[in-house]
Amino acid sequence: MLQMEDAVKLLQEQVKPVTETEELSLLEGVGRVLAEKAKAAMDQPPFPRSPLDGYAVRGEDTQGANEEFPVGLNVVGKVCAGEVFSGVVGEKEAVRIMTGAPIPQGADTVIRQEDSDRGERRVQIYRESRPYENYCRQGEDYQAGTELLKAGTVLKGSEIALAASLGLDRVKVYRRPEVAVISTGDELVNPGERLMPGKIYDSNRYYVTGRLMEKGISPVCSCHCGDEPEEMAERIRQLSPQVPFLITTGGVSVGEKDIIHEVIRILGARQLFWRVAVKPGAPTLAAVFQGTLMLCLSGNPFGAAANFELLARPVLERLTRDPGWTLKRQRVFLENDYQKPAGARRFLRGYVKGERARISAGNQASGALSALLGCNCLIEIGQDQPGARMGDEVWAYLL
Amino acid sequence: MLQMEDAVKLLQEQVKPVTETEELSLLEGVGRVLAEKAKAAMDQPPFPRSPLDGYAVRGEDTQGANEEFPVGLNVVGKVCAGEVFSGVVGEKEAVRIMTGAPIPQGADTVIRQEDSDRGERRVQIYRESRPYENYCRQGEDYQAGTELLKAGTVLKGSEIALAASLGLDRVKVYRRPEVAVISTGDELVNPGERLMPGKIYDSNRYYVTGRLMEKGISPVCSCHCGDEPEEMAERIRQLSPQVPFLITTGGVSVGEKDIIHEVIRILGARQLFWRVAVKPGAPTLAAVFQGTLMLCLSGNPFGAAANFELLARPVLERLTRDPGWTLKRQRVFLENDYQKPAGARRFLRGYVKGERARISAGNQASGALSALLGCNCLIEIGQDQPGARMGDEVWAYLL
Repeated sequence: MLQMEDAVKLLQEQVKPVTETEELSLLEGVGRVLAEKAKAAMDQPPFPRSPLDGYAVRGEDTQGANEEFPVGLNVVGKVCAGEVFSGVVGEKEAVRIMTGAPIPQGADTVIRQEDSDRGERRVQIYRESRPYENYCRQGEDYQAGTELLKAGTVLKGSEIALAASLGLDRVKVYRRPEVAVISTGDELVNPGERLMPGKIYDSNRYYVTGRLMEKGISPVCSCHCGDEPEEMAERIRQLSPQVPFLITTGGVSVGEKDIIHEVIRILGARQLFWRVAVKPGAPTLAAVFQGTLMLCLSGNPFGAAANFELLARPVLERLTRDPGWTLKRQRVFLENDYQKPAGARRFLRGYVKGERARISAGNQASGALSALLGCNCLIEIGQDQPGARMGDEVWAYLL
Repeated sequence: MLQMEDAVKLLQEQVKPVTETEELSLLEGVGRVLAEKAKAAMDQPPFPRSPLDGYAVRGEDTQGANEEFPVGLNVVGKVCAGEVFSGVVGEKEAVRIMTGAPIPQGADTVIRQEDSDRGERRVQIYRESRPYENYCRQGEDYQAGTELLKAGTVLKGSEIALAASLGLDRVKVYRRPEVAVISTGDELVNPGERLMPGKIYDSNRYYVTGRLMEKGISPVCSCHCGDEPEEMAERIRQLSPQVPFLITTGGVSVGEKDIIHEVIRILGARQLFWRVAVKPGAPTLAAVFQGTLMLCLSGNPFGAAANFELLARPVLERLTRDPGWTLKRQRVFLENDYQKPAGARRFLRGYVKGERARISAGNQASGALSALLGCNCLIEIGQDQPGARMGDEVWAYLL
């Protein structure tokens, strides 16, 4: 059977990273993927800047100054942040200066006001200062021409602040790709409707849609379709021109109500694979229809959830260019035992903290949903292992 | 000087966790904090369910069956997922059953179709099955009356799916609190505007607003105010009735343009503290005006950013009830050295991976912003330490 890693490769090959961009105001860009690099047009700070409140002076004039033998300087002006002192600070002169103000020409250091008598016309300096002490050099943070943000960067607080410091009020970002989610199964009822005998509420569509929405993707369609292959095929035909990626749940096994095989045939879609060597969710199927990648997940709640994480996220990572979709894994040490029949490569719901992980004691059956609550990882038990024991080192895939 | 932990306590005491709720459709609730518990109204699954495609039978009827000596049973009906078989499975009888369908009364196990001749009227069974093998019991996932989601739970994919499985199409969630952000300083210019000499672009407001928006809070006001205390006070008077929490940047030091002290006086606000024993951002000030908590951060970009993380996040955690705001810290081993003068408790920009962390080689000055790019933590160097060395164990606060 196909290995998960090979399935991921086949899936990723079928999607192209989004190329469409849109221009947004800087704050609308929060969480989005930058589509073009951002270079500094000027030095930052754009001028030598005072890091404190005090007096801008020539360092050599303060040599030897101390409380007992202060140095007196003539205060020839004042400059606050946002202002410019147009003159030049000459010998034995000082300019009153506030934090953030440009250090006037001629001055090469700033005396803290605490080290002076705070004189207004003439100031006594109590401490000597070397040139470029208390002096933020022009371009100290970054220099004109520096590429500060690369295309592909996700705009979080720091990147937004940096873009603002560059003077950018608009950013070009990649569009969010359109995605559709369809759950199948005559047994499913939408939440809020009345549950008749033999029916259950649809949860898979909500898992997949909820996960997409967590990371900012609102599916163009999140709907349920009954077990009528023609109807399902028609729905896909309509969606296909809009969506590069379509996720379905249910109908992928071998029963007569497993309609996806028939849907693929009706559409004339090209099947990429059926069945992946993982448990839960082994019957996952993938196909391409007129450029739309269809990932058809198992109808078992945990089968759908686990394979959304293992197979759909790598597709979304490539499609959106957003590394937030990357499924990260880490080596962890198990804190409890788990028995399973050898054979299938198994993913279990678990909780990881630091380098330790615990397999959820809840119901790990594919059909059970509640054991997913409070979990933050999938723990892998290898194909040939009959289970795992406390202390074993295993992979945890972070949700 | 006030310790950071004491400042956090003083701040948190001033805000009440949000009590206002709103009812949203389930999918609109993604990322929100649930305001009431969710209990199961029925068992899940609501009936004994077939986990596979096959034949529902009485296990005792299959005893001894094998390929050589199959057991023949009369097929008395068929049931697909979503349907109900109204009869009872009697002795030597079978009902054709599909995955997810209710197991009919009388039957206590399901024979996989692969273990039969798939007969339609009469079926040959090739394998014996014990009662309750291949049988999902009613309530196996969860039972009626179980409290599945507590008030205060953040609704992510798993919780949304679980709520859907309970039949909930609407959820009551806490409202997002209104927050305002004001940057001060005559030297600041909004991005997109022309930069005149002596001016710089405003970035602090964008850092704070960007961080709020990353976690779904759009400030009611994110604006800039010049160094005019009366104007600033008036702005706060207008905002106060709407916002429990107001963050400002700049104007908190000791210079004559440090207007926040005057603003506090004009408003008659109650000052909670001024100065916290941390570097950067020591002059942070907090006050309460007519029930609005004002947190006034330093105007230095890294001072504002670090104290947003260290001081504003604990406020937002309490206010929003969203543990996503919780500032988590972990012990890490340093991968590089850093020299600092002993004295201030210092927070440095760094990058943590697993149990190792590296202090950013970029400019760590309070006024520098670019070193924040690519960082994912603040690394603490204690008050009495002259620096840190490779291999030292320190705290990393995760951004």
